[in-house]
Order: sequence, then structure tokens, then C-alpha cells
Amino acid sequence: MAYARDFDIQIGERPTGPTNSMADIEGLSFGHVTLSDGSTQTGVTVVHPAPDSVFQTKCIAACHVINGFGKSIGLMQLEELGQLETPIVLTNTLSVGTASTALVKHMLAGHPAIGETTGTVNPIVMECNDGAFLNDIRGLHVSEEHVLQALARHDPQLAQGAVGAGTGMSSYGLKGGIGSASRVIGIGARSFTLAATTLCNMGRLPDLMVNGRPIGAEIQACQESGNNAELGSIIILLATDAPLTSRQLKRICKRATAGLARTGTQFGSGSGDVVLGFSTAGRLPHDAPDTPVLAMEMLHEDQLDHLFSTTIEAVEEAILNALFASKTTKGKHDRVRESLADWWLKLKK
Amino acid sequence: MAYARDFDIQIGERPTGPTNSMADIEGLSFGHVTLSDGSTQTGVTVVHPAPDSVFQTKCIAACHVINGFGKSIGLMQLEELGQLETPIVLTNTLSVGTASTALVKHMLAGHPAIGETTGTVNPIVMECNDGAFLNDIRGLHVSEEHVLQALARHDPQLAQGAVGAGTGMSSYGLKGGIGSASRVIGIGARSFTLAATTLCNMGRLPDLMVNGRPIGAEIQACQESGNNAELGSIIILLATDAPLTSRQLKRICKRATAGLARTGTQFGSGSGDVVLGFSTAGRLPHDAPDTPVLAMEMLHEDQLDHLFSTTIEAVEEAILNALFASKTTKGKHDRVRESLADWWLKLKK
Amino acid sequence: MAYARDFDIQIGERPTGPTNSMADIEGLSFGHVTLSDGSTQTGVTVVHPAPDSVFQTKCIAACHVINGFGKSIGLMQLEELGQLETPIVLTNTLSVGTASTALVKHMLAGHPAIGETTGTVNPIVMECNDGAFLNDIRGLHVSEEHVLQALARHDPQLAQGAVGAGTGMSSYGLKGGIGSASRVIGIGARSFTLAATTLCNMGRLPDLMVNGRPIGAEIQACQESGNNAELGSIIILLATDAPLTSRQLKRICKRATAGLARTGTQFGSGSGDVVLGFSTAGRLPHDAPDTPVLAMEMLHEDQLDHLFSTTIEAVEEAILNALFASKTTKGKHDRVRESLADWWLKLKK
Amino acid sequence: MAYARDFDIQIGERPTGPTNSMADIEGLSFGHVTLSDGSTQTGVTVVHPAPDSVFQTKCIAACHVINGFGKSIGLMQLEELGQLETPIVLTNTLSVGTASTALVKHMLAGHPAIGETTGTVNPIVMECNDGAFLNDIRGLHVSEEHVLQALARHDPQLAQGAVGAGTGMSSYGLKGGIGSASRVIGIGARSFTLAATTLCNMGRLPDLMVNGRPIGAEIQACQESGNNAELGSIIILLATDAPLTSRQLKRICKRATAGLARTGTQFGSGSGDVVLGFSTAGRLPHDAPDTPVLAMEMLHEDQLDHLFSTTIEAVEEAILNALFASKTTKGKHDRVRESLADWWLKLKK
Repeated sequence: MAYARDFDIQIGERPTGPTNSMADIEGLSFGHVTLSDGSTQTGVTVVHPAPDSVFQTKCIAACHVINGFGKSIGLMQLEELGQLETPIVLTNTLSVGTASTALVKHMLAGHPAIGETTGTVNPIVMECNDGAFLNDIRGLHVSEEHVLQALARHDPQLAQGAVGAGTGMSSYGLKGGIGSASRVIGIGARSFTLAATTLCNMGRLPDLMVNGRPIGAEIQACQESGNNAELGSIIILLATDAPLTSRQLKRICKRATAGLARTGTQFGSGSGDVVLGFSTAGRLPHDAPDTPVLAMEMLHEDQLDHLFSTTIEAVEEAILNALFASKTTKGKHDRVRESLADWWLKLKK
Repeated sequence: MAYARDFDIQIGERPTGPTNSMADIEGLSFGHVTLSDGSTQTGVTVVHPAPDSVFQTKCIAACHVINGFGKSIGLMQLEELGQLETPIVLTNTLSVGTASTALVKHMLAGHPAIGETTGTVNPIVMECNDGAFLNDIRGLHVSEEHVLQALARHDPQLAQGAVGAGTGMSSYGLKGGIGSASRVIGIGARSFTLAATTLCNMGRLPDLMVNGRPIGAEIQACQESGNNAELGSIIILLATDAPLTSRQLKRICKRATAGLARTGTQFGSGSGDVVLGFSTAGRLPHDAPDTPVLAMEMLHEDQLDHLFSTTIEAVEEAILNALFASKTTKGKHDRVRESLADWWLKLKK
Repeated sequence: MAYARDFDIQIGERPTGPTNSMADIEGLSFGHVTLSDGSTQTGVTVVHPAPDSVFQTKCIAACHVINGFGKSIGLMQLEELGQLETPIVLTNTLSVGTASTALVKHMLAGHPAIGETTGTVNPIVMECNDGAFLNDIRGLHVSEEHVLQALARHDPQLAQGAVGAGTGMSSYGLKGGIGSASRVIGIGARSFTLAATTLCNMGRLPDLMVNGRPIGAEIQACQESGNNAELGSIIILLATDAPLTSRQLKRICKRATAGLARTGTQFGSGSGDVVLGFSTAGRLPHDAPDTPVLAMEMLHEDQLDHLFSTTIEAVEEAILNALFASKTTKGKHDRVRESLADWWLKLKK
Repeated sequence: MAYARDFDIQIGERPTGPTNSMADIEGLSFGHVTLSDGSTQTGVTVVHPAPDSVFQTKCIAACHVINGFGKSIGLMQLEELGQLETPIVLTNTLSVGTASTALVKHMLAGHPAIGETTGTVNPIVMECNDGAFLNDIRGLHVSEEHVLQALARHDPQLAQGAVGAGTGMSSYGLKGGIGSASRVIGIGARSFTLAATTLCNMGRLPDLMVNGRPIGAEIQACQESGNNAELGSIIILLATDAPLTSRQLKRICKRATAGLARTGTQFGSGSGDVVLGFSTAGRLPHDAPDTPVLAMEMLHEDQLDHLFSTTIEAVEEAILNALFASKTTKGKHDRVRESLADWWLKLKK
């Protein structure tokens, strides 16, 4: 698998974490189920935000909607409470309901109190439309079982490219998929990590920019392909171990917009571009303790600039990694999405 | 079936429509599926916003989140585009995924272009938690088939009370359910109708006010019942035939808050209180016409005050109708929710 | 001066603080300048949120816009940073610029670093339109000197009624003004105080409700007065010593809507209804400390319900106090606004 | 005066309007007052959105806050009503109050009904902090008279660079100021123009990108200058003659974020980055007509993509024009901000 750095593309100056991916945030794990067979090109990706139950001890979280042409579920409550209480599931647009039901069943199985002695649970499922090009999305090929399989996996590493929910995605007229990147930030005597994971399905080919190079226009010049509207989407997940309030996390989520913009997209009217961020620091107990005042930490507001620039770098690189790591793929109607990696080498000559 | 007016309770001064319900808005129809059997007390309610395809010709719409502890889906896109493009489905909290999948299948069946030659579809499913008291919500008793049955119904009248999604709901420590009310407004030479439909599952008993009377405290004084936190929710639907932009509709949605407040609730931390409004005027074609500028109408902003007061009245009365129309119901663990109608007569003596 | 409780009106069950006003929050002080002379009926009110510099050590804060037909300044930054860094100034709508300049000068005088070695300062000025009935608002009678005088005052008590910014206000067709109320809340072993201060200029006479009694309609029946549109506004300030994040404070601010709704208003299209809340706990240093992670406290989310019901009670009573405490006043064009206190006694007979 | 195109920098593919500035929108006019004398480096810029009274016949408008560390006034009401009813005034941060008072006086003089027989007026004043480097902002050198002079001017052309409110601004460690750009869009048989005007005071030198070239880092390598936090801001104004609802305009405003991001900034924590957009089509009468339903036009939603890409191009070029058109300037403490134009020529060699 190839990443942007394998092509001598380096975004920004800050050091990456050991794996340059969201796996660098301690405690996280991941699960993919990939469905790639003829016109079925889709799948499921799960991000577990903690090794223990995130329902019992919630993560502080926030979201930001860059463009709301999307069908993610769970964001209303996440926004209200500033809390994440389930794993995050990514899949295709029309499978959100199925994934939501499976995630609810997964949570019910692990938590007998839900819906009985405590309230309900707020499942987070986010999506892009892989049906615009490669996947037979009308076939609804993702089953509850697939989602439960992905939830059952706890890989410490995050596979990237045309895997899991990224299997059938297209981005900038090329093969899209899952990408990730991380950065390490020293603030005072402390060191924090921030990572982005992107599910990339957005953008028109002529708009693609790689670190300032208008590669999309160069590729466009080599072919007769159409110049379509954006019917895509991008889901951007941010994770960090820095102590933050949900308001601060929301400010950070908004900076993902700049990283995304630098790859060239205009946030098309039909593209659902959504950011969700969470912190593994300062987790919140589901049940109020006897003494109902929680002790928390938060970064001083002036320090957020470090996290802002970090976020922009990580998001831009995660998107490029999604493009470079995704291999050329054939899907429905024998349509083919080519890999940016192939084009990059071709145009080098 | 009894309504607030059958108990000589009249909210406000404005005239109602012929049925004093959302059925007064021309073109709407409704479908309930009621599951009431022992510990299964739940169901599905559908509001069809138009007699024809609302996907092909969308309704201008808006929403407002009073308190976001809720799991409704579809509101992000509705907010972004100011458009409603499917029927509205109401059900219990943990069945949102199932209902969403069924609604997607319903839309795919009627629209071969979705996910193939056009984009995807944004299903609207809204919910309350009937599992806090009467329903075995963990049993996930609502099936896709139930949702499809409700979608297949097109009743011109809207049954109220403990029916459909209202079957297992509780409100103010009493039996909750579905209620509706309407008002007719003359503005200039034109006449418009606005109606509210509420799925009521919110409130603590001692807080209930009926047109200024603290009946909840009166009932509380007669029994030893607990004083529980709000783990409920209310879904408020507003429909009108007045020509409005989505911004104006959002302003109207916000006024539902006042009608709700006047029944006594504090919008508890764990109560998902959400308003969705749509207009049947000025519908929007899915595909851009050859001449891409649409001719529209909108009310002058100063006229909105008429719709604001109307909304407050209709929402307050719809909530009371839900309470009065819902009959005493027994559910899981042999728990019983009593009807406000019974208490009202009892306390009269 | 008479308050609602002097007329045997008690809102809610919770105990008040010692003065039943915002003066019960430790560390706060207040300043009024009242301009009452013929057609000049206006003024300035200042709330100092802390005894020391709130610029050097900021208060966590939030706001909520119920209806945005208003001209307050400073809320955008307050929302972004969740911080209050100046005293709060209340005045008439067209004097916001003057008050802002005076508040800036006040802050510059006390802080040589502003605009030189640190950034600028975000002045908070909020307003209602006293010119719709009593005050010659076009005369711009509030001068910078008046604002500086109000800022120089640090009264430990908060005078209520037709004083300061409340001098020329009208509410529900009666004399409006400044009102306040407080509540004490025990949570676990801790005790907190929450208080509301309202600048009341909203509402149409027939809509006025006092604790469920439609007194506005009763008064209306006794006179031939007009039934005007709402061109008013209400500013609601909330202060507490409970430890809260700005997100939590915003949730609390939203509950003020219910207290307001219970007095009868519909949040008219032309009424700017705005809530600002702040906490005196967990103050934030302007300059980042050497170790940039701040230790904070926050209430567990489930405990917010206590603050929600408290807020609703305090806001409703603060509004009633504004009405009862404001004496009958004559202003421009010899117009007279009568006191609710007078009517209350008259209608008692 | 030099613009980006004079240096062979062309942003995007779309055709510009005749002047490649906001002057290409019919009916607009402009006024600058420039105060440039030693440590006084500040001023006022006015955009008149219409040749007639925008209070009597309002413009549909919207805004978007990219980062809310700013002190603009009037945006709350503009957002609520989707209307602009005064000229737009730009000035320095601490002069917002003065400018607001002057703008109110200007409006009162022209409209005897304001504050007497109709409601008040919502002045729009937006700002950046020129005091962080060049201007003695604590001196409050902008007087009401200066603002009234700028309001009295109606230049059909928009002067760019270090003029008006741009006089003392800094951007990317270089001289900032006022810039503008326009684009012409054909949609169906109709042709529309969209233009951006930016007041540029944001960015850190090493972050500056010009059409993909990291010129900021190149300049940084040539000098020993500091690497400061963003204490700046950018105000972005968008004007168009396309018929749009305020919701659509808000979507367009959000795309300005991408144009801004492509010049390199991270939207620093202390930078107030705010977008205001308005349309000259579909103007709204202040007073409700006898028949209260207005006939309007709106673009079909799918057409917005044209305006999105146009906005991104125009904003990016307007920012570059501000930088290239602003000449090297000396201000307080003999500090100097150099022009990008000078550096561009120097680095060419």
C-alpha cells in the first residue's frame, strides 16, 4: 500500500505519530468489512474510540457540518451533549438504517440497562454515496451481520484505501476510499497527538490539487472524461488525546474545512461534508457520581492554534492518503475508477 | 375519542379548521400501524406531505431543535436544503434504523433513478422513547414490514391518541400519544391553514398545566407516584399552505417552543424535543428546469406574527389533544399509564 | 418598591436567595443611570460580573437568541470563545454604538495592553427599543458620560423597575423595566445559586399571563387600547456560581425561553429576545499560564435538570418583578404606560 | 495600482466582470475615508448596496461566521430576517461603536419614521484590528464625522489596497488592505455577476500561498521576522445580482471559506473571519403591501454549484488583490509592513 509520503509529498512541517494514522491515538481500534464483488462495491468501517465501553464512560465530542447534503445519524444528540457514546460506523448512504439497527443491537447486547433502567443510546453512523459510480447502492448489500462483524473487530492498525466503507467510493474522478494521518504537538511540557481519518467520496477531477499542484487538471487533459457535479461527500473523523471541551473540539472540527479546501473541492451542493471530532481525555461517566461535580482539564484557548494548524495538515494528508492508497477498482456497469498513484507515476514521466 | 374541546378547554381565539387537525391541510394523508399486545406497546405513524411524489416535487421545510437529546434522522439535509423529499415516519427511538431502511426501500421502489441516475434520498424518521415505561423497546418489535404498511396507508383523517407511534408513549406521567390541532388565518384577502401534530412523550407529572391550570400537581397530590427525570421527547410537526421560505418556516418552528412550554415542561436534559415544519405551497422540482430560475411566493415578514401566534395555539392544543385522546394503557411489567381524560373527570367532582 | 411576591404571586417551589435577585450571586455589582425627563425616558444599566477584572480573568459564558430582531453587540465572540470579558451594558437600541464606545474606553483605561501588546476587547452591549412608546429614542440622549457613570457604580444591590435601561421600556402594553429573581439549588452536598435579570420591553397586552391568570385580557377588557404588534424585545441575563462549561450554560440559556413563554409572549417577529448566561465559577486567565492545561470543574450533565427548572422559575419571576416594580410613567407625546401593580389592585376588587 | 493579474496570476477559469471588482454589480457604490499620518493608520470603507434606500427596500442577505473572534455588529438581525437594511461600514475593531452611532444618525436623517412610527434600524458595521501592528488603535482616531463622510461618498468604482478601512491592516505579515474581484456566470439563458470584497488583516507570513506557490515561506526565508499568532481578521463581502433566498446566500457565504483557505490561513483562534453576502435581486419592501404575498424568484438549488465555484475564485483573487494593491506602509513605532508586490518582483529574480 502506498501513501502520499511514498511519493515524496509532505504536507506541513509538524512531526507525524509512529504510524501517521489514527492508530497513533492510544486506545483506539478499528474494523473493516469489505464487500467487493462485481457491481457490489461497498462495506463498513468501524472506529472504536476506546478500549472499554464508551457508553459507560463517554468521550467528549463535537461535530461540524461543512455542507449538510448528508444522511449521517446521531449528530443532533452528539452536538447537544458534547458526547460520543458508541463506536462510529461508516458505510454507504442507503445502508445507514441497517447499520444503525446493527449498532443498536450491538449496544443493547453489551448494556442491559439501555432502554430499561436507563435511557436509550445514540448510535453514530456516517455515510457517503458510493452508488453514483461504482456500487449497486440500490441493492442494499450491507447487512446487519456485516456491521456486527466490523464492530467485532478491534484491529490496532487502520487499513487504508479501498477497504471497508471506502471500497466503492470515488473522489476527484479517481478511486476514493479511507485515508488517515496524524501529527504530534508539544504544548508546554506536554505532548499530544491529533489524527484524522477521512472517507473520501468528494470532488470533481479538474479541481484536484496535491500540495499546490493542479494534478486534476493535468489528468483531465489526458482523457475525455466528463466534468460532473459533486454528488459525493466526505466524512472526516478527528481524534486527539488533548484535553478539550466540546466547544473547543468544535472549533477544531471547523479547521478541517481548510485541509479539505486545499485539495481543491468546492463543497458541492450535493456533497455531504461532515466532521466529527472526539477526545480520549476527560471521559464522562454515564451515571452521575455521588458528588456530581466532575474534575476536568481543558487547554487554554490560546493553545488551540497549535491544534488548528495540526488539524489542517492532518486532514489534507489523510485525503491524499485515501487517494494514493486506493487501488484502481472496477464496479457496476464495468465502470472503472483509477488510482491517483497510477496517474502520479504516469505523469511523472 | 375525546379531545380537549370536549372538556371545554379552548386554547386561544383563532378559528380551527374543519377537523381541527392536520387533515385540514389539503393534500395530506396519514398512516398508522399500532402494535399493542402485552409488553409490546409501540408502532409507526406516517405523514404524507403531498398526494404526489414529494421526491419529484419537494416541499419547502425547516426544523428546530428545542433540545437535542434525540435520534431523528434526515434533519441535517432538510436544514441545508430547506426541503422535504420523503414522507415523515414517526416511531420509537431504537426502531429508527429499521424505519429508515424501510422508508428507503419505499422510495427506491417508486423512483428508479435514486442511487443510479440521480443522487440518493434523505429519509425523515423521528422518534420518542416509549421504552422508559410501557414498551419493551429492547425487543425491537417494529419491523420493516410494519413501516411499509404504514407508508401504504393514505387516510385522509388523522387518528389521535394511543395509536401508531403514540401507542406506548407517556407524557407528564400520564398516557401520551398523538395529538393534532389546526387554525385558519386570514391575511389580507387570502386565507391560510396551519396545523400541528405532536408525538407526546415528554414532561413530569407535577409540571403539567392545562390552559393555566396546574392539573399535574393536583393529580400528583392524589397519588404517591414518583417524580422522575424527563427521559421522554416530543416530536412536533407543523404543516401549512402559506407560501414561506425555509427561513420563515424555521422562525415558525421556533414558536412551537412557546406552545410546548405552556403545557409545563422544562425541556428536560434527557428529552429530545424537535420541531419539523413544511409548507405545501411553492413546491420545488427535483430536476432543474430548462430555465433555472423558479418563480416563488413568500409572505411579507411582518405577516409572520399571525403564523407565530397560530403556531403557539395549535401546538398547545395538539399536546392537550394527545393527552385527552390517549386511553389508559397497560404495558410491560404490568405498568399502567392513565388517561388525562379520566383524571379530568375525576378531579371535576 | 413592590415585587410579585408582595402580591402573593409565587413562581415555582424552589427557595429564593436572600434578596431574590441577581445580587445573590457573590461578587456581582450593578450600576444604573436613569434619564427621566419629559420625552427623555431612557438610561443605562451595568452588570459587573466580578469584583476584579473580568478581562484578566474571564467568566465562562454563553448566549441564546430566541428571536434575533435585535442589535446587541459582542455575542458572536462570546459564542465562539464561551467567554465574557467585560461588564454587561444594557441601554436603548440606538445608543448601542455610544455605549460600546464608552465601554471600550473604560476597558482601555484599565488595561494598557489592549490593542497594543495583546488583542482587542469584546464589549457586550444589549438593548431594547424604548422609542416605540415612551422615549424620544431619535434624540440619542444617552451619552458616553452616562455609560461611564453607570460603569463606575458598583452597587451590591440591584434596583428594579423603571430605572436605568428600564426607564422607558414598555411590556405587555404596561410599564416595563428591570426585574430580577434568584433561586438556590442543592445538588449533592453542594449548594448553588442561579439568578435572572430581565430588561422587559416585549409583549402585547392581551397576551399577558401571571402565573396562569390571563390578566392581560382582563385589563384589555377594561380599556379601548390598541392591539399592537410586538416591536419590543427582552434581554435576559442569567448568572450562577455553579461550575459549567459554555455548552452547558447555553443549554441553560435556552430554558429561559420557557419562563418567558409562560408570561404570554409569542416572541413577535419584531421583538429581539436574547439570553446571555455566565458563571462565576471556573474563571479563565487571559494569558496562557506556563502549563497550558487548566483544571476545571463541571456539573455532570444529568444535574442540569435542576438548573433548567430553576432558570424557568427565575426568568418568569424576574419578568413579573419588572412589571410589578415599574411605576406608571409618562413620556414622549404625553403617552402614559401604567403599572401592572396598579391594575392588579384595581382588578382585585 | 497593481493587481494579481498584473503579475500573471489568474485564479480559476471563469470570466471576470468589466472591472474585476464589486463595482461590476449594478447599483452599488463605495466610499473610503483614509487616515494615514504617522501612527494613525486607519479609516472607513462604505459599501452602498443599492442606489436607493436599502431601508425602504431591503436586500436579501446572509452571513457566515468562519471564526467568531470578531466584533461586527448587526449580524444577529441580518441572520434572523435574511435582510440588509443599511449600507455596510468597515472600520477598525475599537471604532465599531463610533461607526455604528454615525450610521444610525445617517439613517435617522434620511428616515423620519425610524424610532417613531416604525421600528428601529439595524446598522451593519464590520471590523478588523489594525492595532496589532501599524495603527494606534487605542487613539480611537475614527470620528463620527469620518464615517459620515464615507457614507456621503458614492463612487461607482472601488479603490483597492491600503485605503479606507484597509489603511492600517496587515495580512500574512505583509501589508494588507482592501481587495476585490468579480466573476460572470451564465446559467441557462441568464447571466449573473458575483463579486467579493475583502478587508484583509489575517494570516501568518509562512502560511501565505499564492495560487499554490508557498511564497510566504519563501519570503520568510529571506528575513528574520517573527512567527506570530493570528490576531487579525478578515471581512469578506459577497454581492450578486442572482435571485437567491437567504438560505441559498448563506450556502454561498460558506464557500468563501475555501477561497480563504487556499491563501494559506488556518483561521487562527484570535482571527475574526466573517462573511456577509447580499443579492440585489428580489428586494423586499419595508412596509407590507396591501396584498401581503410577495412574488419572488430563486435559483434552482442544483445551480448553486456555479455560484459556489465562482465564490471561491472571487474570494481567493480578492485577497490576492488586497495584498498586491497595498503599498508598503509605515505606522506606529515606525513599524513597516511591506507590499507583496515588492516581494514578488524581488523573488522573481
